Amino acid sequence: MLIDSLIEKIIQTNNPSVIGIDTAFDYLPNDLKEKVTTLDEAAQAIRQFNYAVIDAVADIAPAVKVQVAYYEMYGVAGMQCFYDTLRYAKERGLFVVSDIKRNDIGSTAACYSTAYLGETRIGDQKFRAFPSDFVTVNGYLGSDGIQPFLQDCKAYDRGMFILVKTSNPSSDEFQDRAYAGGELLYEAMADKVTAWGSELVGSYGYSSVGAVVGATKPEQAKKIRERSPQLFFLVPGYGAQGGGAADIMNCFDHRGLGAIVNSSRGILCAYRQEKYAGMHFDSAARAAAIDMQRDITQTLKKFGKEIKRS
Amino acid sequence: MLIDSLIEKIIQTNNPSVIGIDTAFDYLPNDLKEKVTTLDEAAQAIRQFNYAVIDAVADIAPAVKVQVAYYEMYGVAGMQCFYDTLRYAKERGLFVVSDIKRNDIGSTAACYSTAYLGETRIGDQKFRAFPSDFVTVNGYLGSDGIQPFLQDCKAYDRGMFILVKTSNPSSDEFQDRAYAGGELLYEAMADKVTAWGSELVGSYGYSSVGAVVGATKPEQAKKIRERSPQLFFLVPGYGAQGGGAADIMNCFDHRGLGAIVNSSRGILCAYRQEKYAGMHFDSAARAAAIDMQRDITQTLKKFGKEIKRS
Repeated sequence: MLIDSLIEKIIQTNNPSVIGIDTAFDYLPNDLKEKVTTLDEAAQAIRQFNYAVIDAVADIAPAVKVQVAYYEMYGVAGMQCFYDTLRYAKERGLFVVSDIKRNDIGSTAACYSTAYLGETRIGDQKFRAFPSDFVTVNGYLGSDGIQPFLQDCKAYDRGMFILVKTSNPSSDEFQDRAYAGGELLYEAMADKVTAWGSELVGSYGYSSVGAVVGATKPEQAKKIRERSPQLFFLVPGYGAQGGGAADIMNCFDHRGLGAIVNSSRGILCAYRQEKYAGMHFDSAARAAAIDMQRDITQTLKKFGKEIKRS
Repeated sequence: MLIDSLIEKIIQTNNPSVIGIDTAFDYLPNDLKEKVTTLDEAAQAIRQFNYAVIDAVADIAPAVKVQVAYYEMYGVAGMQCFYDTLRYAKERGLFVVSDIKRNDIGSTAACYSTAYLGETRIGDQKFRAFPSDFVTVNGYLGSDGIQPFLQDCKAYDRGMFILVKTSNPSSDEFQDRAYAGGELLYEAMADKVTAWGSELVGSYGYSSVGAVVGATKPEQAKKIRERSPQLFFLVPGYGAQGGGAADIMNCFDHRGLGAIVNSSRGILCAYRQEKYAGMHFDSAARAAAIDMQRDITQTLKKFGKEIKRS
């Protein structure tokens, strides 16, 4: 089961974090941006940057999360760079989460699932369009928009994280409103995600169908952790968005398992921070990734949640 | 205002329909599929098919809707085909709706909006990554995920349709549940969409920020039409998904305005229907598009809603 393999790697690296490769062209150091005047050249520069960051963290981090919006912005060339980045991260042994937040009716959701989790068939040939281990998905359309992803998770041993409680300030507008009877929308979503993933629970008690729960929402994370013990959390919002290590402790169980925490800008743009002044961008990214790992694991220790198998 | 231009074109063509260019490789006739063994070749064949369909409907339809999932499925080559299809439809004078259902936190939503509605800047250069007039957006994350799209709608005179009540069978799981106080989630979403689009209302009383309302949901469409007179509807689900012309009458106002109705498979695969037997795929697509226009406008007439300016 994919989720077990991810958890094993988290235990082995003692690192429940994921490196967000959400590379805006503006994030690059000046020497990589010089002389760039086209989308193709921008995409090439971003690829070079991404490969260096992946090389810098491949032995210490279990996974990368690649946010596709940052690549769609650079058009077709950007999507080539996205594809290359997914492939390179996989080659370097990292788990790959494509952060796509896709959603649609069943027949269209099947196309998305084919693109990221499954295989595209042309006659007798099979291709992986944008090869990913996990994707993120939006559940607003309900079960029939989720089923195609579920089928591919089963058929190909993949996983997904469904938006439950997002990290952005206005996520309460819909997600935290109470339905008649008192249940909040994000609680109803958490229950659905649990049901959808119930056939994909691995040996640690977690399902390959998990939940996105923002680092900036510790109270909601606590409720979801208690309500939905089967949900593994993908936690965005640590670092640049304002979530600290203490804020995310509610996402973890007593074994220090149950969540993987993302940081993007805090790693990619570390070379601009005073703390890492004078370092090359990839060395700074590695140093920031190590600092993040220490911050989270030391805080877990403080809370009596050191990472362990049982 | 973009929505006024679209409405003018609907009046001029007497056609409130949009042609869905959601082309799966399997939809192609055999002669286009022969000898295709790679994603590149598949994308080329789809492009040839799309151009022919666009040529066949360009003088009778006001707009096309291009569902990006069908292109992501063919990888980078598919995204090149998506780009080419958007450009070609625009060249042929059609309004272009990119059906992307994107959604994310503010900073990431800004990347998506740049990609489809705005401009990507590289130094002094500006590029349009995937040039679209309208996009579809999912509002589950609330206002701050919508703001970047809104800003680009204002800056570049573009539009968007936000998911309110989707056409799929399980859309009631979340969307039709009542919040405490009795308001349904899709009603709350409709109210938000109205607020978000309030500064982009044109001379017909409709905003460039509209709503996706499924053809398969006539009761909900009636409620939303009455509750939210400012919302122009993008209506999927006519044809292959089971929605008929009578089902969509509630989407229109007394002038026969207020909605644009999509059909995809019913047009693209018309050549396989007995009704159009023996016709080339593009002639069949044109004939089916004309039949759809007649079906909708004659039904509008029956309901006393012939399309008119006021």
